[in-house]
Parts: sequence; structure tokens; C-alpha cells
Amino acid sequence: MLMANTSAEQIPTIADILTAQQRIEGKIRTTPVLSEPVVNEILGCELWLKCENLQRTGAFKFRGASNAIARLTELGLDGDVATHSSGNHGSALALAASNHGLSAWIVMPDNSVKTKVEAVRRNGGNIVFCKPEQLDREKGLAELVTRGCVPIPPYDHADIICGQGTAVVELAEQCADIDIVLTPVGGGGLISGSAIAAKALIPSVTVIGAEPEGAADTAFSLEQGKRVDEFPIDTIADGLRAIVGVLNFKIIQDKVDKVLTVSESGIRDAMALIWRHFRMVIEPSSATVIAAITEHPEYFAGRRVGAIISGGNVDLEQLPFKP
Amino acid sequence: MLMANTSAEQIPTIADILTAQQRIEGKIRTTPVLSEPVVNEILGCELWLKCENLQRTGAFKFRGASNAIARLTELGLDGDVATHSSGNHGSALALAASNHGLSAWIVMPDNSVKTKVEAVRRNGGNIVFCKPEQLDREKGLAELVTRGCVPIPPYDHADIICGQGTAVVELAEQCADIDIVLTPVGGGGLISGSAIAAKALIPSVTVIGAEPEGAADTAFSLEQGKRVDEFPIDTIADGLRAIVGVLNFKIIQDKVDKVLTVSESGIRDAMALIWRHFRMVIEPSSATVIAAITEHPEYFAGRRVGAIISGGNVDLEQLPFKP
Repeated sequence: MLMANTSAEQIPTIADILTAQQRIEGKIRTTPVLSEPVVNEILGCELWLKCENLQRTGAFKFRGASNAIARLTELGLDGDVATHSSGNHGSALALAASNHGLSAWIVMPDNSVKTKVEAVRRNGGNIVFCKPEQLDREKGLAELVTRGCVPIPPYDHADIICGQGTAVVELAEQCADIDIVLTPVGGGGLISGSAIAAKALIPSVTVIGAEPEGAADTAFSLEQGKRVDEFPIDTIADGLRAIVGVLNFKIIQDKVDKVLTVSESGIRDAMALIWRHFRMVIEPSSATVIAAITEHPEYFAGRRVGAIISGGNVDLEQLPFKP
Repeated sequence: MLMANTSAEQIPTIADILTAQQRIEGKIRTTPVLSEPVVNEILGCELWLKCENLQRTGAFKFRGASNAIARLTELGLDGDVATHSSGNHGSALALAASNHGLSAWIVMPDNSVKTKVEAVRRNGGNIVFCKPEQLDREKGLAELVTRGCVPIPPYDHADIICGQGTAVVELAEQCADIDIVLTPVGGGGLISGSAIAAKALIPSVTVIGAEPEGAADTAFSLEQGKRVDEFPIDTIADGLRAIVGVLNFKIIQDKVDKVLTVSESGIRDAMALIWRHFRMVIEPSSATVIAAITEHPEYFAGRRVGAIISGGNVDLEQLPFKP
């Protein structure tokens, strides 16, 4: 059956996200939500971690990729798909494509985390390396499209946004009365889907994004009142080095209450804190949400915070924190 | 209210375990159960991981310690408690004691994993180091008892066994129709509690233990038909270096269907497999259950296996596998 949905460039609704949830049910993992009294005491708020680091392929990206591929299959596509990705979207797309018997081509920056490169390969993806800059990534993808691949962008696409938004649908079911939904901000797929879901499902919720100072294009774009398409990128949060997408930025302007920026040392300390008290190795991108709480406590004090831990794909040999 | 229960040396019943579950509810974390189709394909069975590595203090030990301390409090105790432990029970007892305003003294082998030593300290425990041998551990504890501490043994105690058994009570609720319950075997607290719960709650279940070849005292004791109290210990599974307890061995003889032994390389490979596909760093002791499946596939082929991942307390700087 062909499911009704918005087109790739239209802002999705909560109905689209709930349809996505039905579409990917049984393919993705319902991830756990964990809390730790000792950490709550340290942070001064009631923190609930939505553990997408324990999602299949080790990141929330598998939600969006699974939704996008399932939609294409419904529409009768049976060719190759392609994307550009620092790793998590690529790995997710590779597994989602191979689950449907399709081939995936992934344009990856040549400074990608090793464990992410291996994961793309393990999931059956074909890799094309490029320079790390945004324009090189996009050029690499454009070449694959001219060769006949269907592009599945990592974030700037309604089906991707809908898939990512399903994490907050689950969170709202698993954890009642959340005051704040907190997610990392990279290309904006996760936060835009999360914001649509949160504002529709959780009464009086505040939606906050966390962005590294060295990749704060979204915070800067919000200040400017329009999306910038260049920003000097310098952060260990390899999953957040992309520039916010066009559709994503529209949604963020409309539905996200605040984007907070965090320091690199805050990110490292947050990784150590989560390892120490939850025995989970989370990737630097995920740790931005914890750093947002430690560096901007006034937004969170005494509140019930649902934070999305976006991924756990880290090179264990090169941890950026001292365990 | 003083709860009825068996004495420390009597074999607990399922009723005692269900009472323990009520007693520690809200103090312990209901841990997630995770499965991964790619891993199921590799292993040739349907594997469900009961993730006690994500339990508070990073190990199932917090269940038993919480139950034992809560029972003592019900009985009116308000002094110091003491134990010997390679780390996980000590850390769990320290947190459980400090939750009840009590002090805990922990006898630890001087070759304990660093991250476990730090965890005991962080949870407010006082450490007394000893030589790694079983007799030295017991001597250290005996000295603390003569100084007035109430001993809370790590496994050979009905309240501990009941607490550990609650993991399988949860598992049976979270995951229907399990064919095999599979746990590591060290001192025997986890497997004895698990076996009592599994045989009572899951129809036709088989209970299997996994033990390193270099700490296979339980498998050897079962062969001999009686508990041996010495065994040459040589394994990276630091949580399983203890000799099986007296009460624990009685329960194992009665209720455990098989104890399988696994190699050190099997343990290392299993840690790598779980990191690769679940993005969890599990400790060597936990990895024995995965090694049991890879090294003895005939027991598990095509079956639905609930495996308890006992802990996640590992020194990240000294991982015994190549990620």
C-alpha cells in the first residue's frame, strides 16, 4: 500500500511522524530511557537519557534512513541509493538499503572516525571518500546522482526528519511529564523531527538544542534571522560538523526554543561523566547535550529533561577523554 | 514492617525472590533487553541480552547488595557493613549502604581493575587491599568482622541470591517464551538466583552457566559431585575468579542444567562482537555467555536465549580486545 506523506521539501506534521513510526516498527529498536540519581544530583535536574547510542547501527540515524528507504520501496524504487555522511547516516543507510535488497553509495569525509568507516563497510555500503568540506561532500553526492543513484540526504529531507522524530514519540510514551526535550544540533534532522513531535505530544514542553561552539552555524543563523551556508568548523563532535539544512532550519526557527553552544572541554567532560555513571561510551556529538546542562544550568535547574543521546560510535583507541 | 524471609544459609524460594523484587523496586534500575538480527545470524540463535552492564554501579551486583542492606535495615541494623570483592559487589554494597546512611568496608584484591577501585571509592566505600587469593580475601573480611562490621558476603548468602534472581524475574516479564537462560558463573550468586527464578517462572526452560576455563571450579565441582574449595585461577574475567559458594553450589547442583567452559580468546572475541554490534563495552566476565554460544553452538542453535550481561566495568585504557 502506498502511504500518503508530504513531499521531501514540505514541513512534516505529527501525522507524518506517526506514519513513519508505523512504517519502521519492528525494523528499528525501541531504545531504553535511563536515569541515575547520582548524576541528577551532580547536574541539578532530573535527566532522562533516551539512548539512541543503543539504536541499531549505534545512532538515531537508522530511524530516518529506515523510513526513507521504506518509503522509496513503497513508491516502487529498486535502484541504488546514495548519500554523504561523516558515518552514522551512511552506516544507517547502508543497513536500511541492504535490508531492502538495495545498494548504497556513501560519500565520506577522509577524516571520518575509523569505527564509522568500518561500520559502513560492514553494513554493505560502498564508500567514496572526499575532502571534509561541505561543498566537497555535496559535489561527491551530485556525481553519484548523475550516475543514476537516488539521493537520500542525511537531514534535509521530510522522510529523514519524520524518521528521526520517532525517537521523541517513544520518549514521550516512556517518560511522562517531560519539561524539556534536549537534542544535539548538526544538520538539524534530529532536532527538527524531535521538535515537531515534542510540541505535538508533550504539553508545555520546551525544546532546546546543543551545538559545539566550533560548529555553531545554527545558533549563528538564528541570531542572524537567516540560514548561513558557511561556518568555520572546528570541533571533536564529528557528527555535528555539517551546516544546518534548509528545511531543518525553517522548522528550528518555528519550533525550537533555544540553541545553546558548548565548549570542547565541556564535551570531553560530559563523555567522562556518562562513562563513569552509566558505563556507556557515547560519541562527542551526543555529549553536547550533557555539556549544555553543565555549561548553562539556568535553563535546566529542577526541570525534568529528556535528552537524546544521539550515538555511540567512537574509536575506543582514541577516546577524547580520560576515563 | 519486618519482612519474612529465609535465613542466610537456607535455599531461597521464588517467593523470597519476588519479595526481594518488591523490596528493591525503585532503588535498582529495570535494565533493558536488547537483540540484534545481525548478531542472531552470526550466532545461529535468537539472543536477548539482559543488560545488567547498564544497572546502577555497572553490574547486577547492585540488586543483591540493595536487597541485603534493605533486609538488614528492616531488622534494625545501623552499624558498618563489610565484604570482600574484586570490585562489583564492593561498589554495589558501598552505594547500597550509603543510600541507607551506613558505612561499607571493602576487602579488594590488589590486582583489581582500576575502574572498579575508583567506583568503590566514589560510592563512599572504604577499601582494604589484600592479596588476590581466596583465603586472603576471606581473612581480610574476618578481621573486619572482629572489629564489629556486619559481613555481607558477595554471593554465599540467601539475601544476595534473592536480589540477583530479580534480574531473571524482569527478563521473564520483558521477553516471552525463552528457551534458555544463560549467565556467567563466578561465586554463583547470579546463576543460583537466576536458576531459582527461571525454573519457577519460565516453562520448560534450560539454565546454562558459562565459566572461563581458567576459573572452572564449578564445572569441575559438578564433575566431582562435590564442591572443591581450591582451583588454579587464571583468567581475564576478573569478576569470576572466586570459588563457587557453598549455598550457591547446592542450588547449582539442583537447578542448573549445564555449566560450559570457555577460552580466553573466546572471551576477547565476544567483547569485540558486542562492541561492534551493540556499541556496549562489556566486561570479560559478561562476555563468557557470548563465548559459550560461539564455542558450544550445539546447545543454542535455533533457540531463544536470554543471556545476562553481568557488568560493564572495564578499564578503557586496557581493553583486552581490539575494537
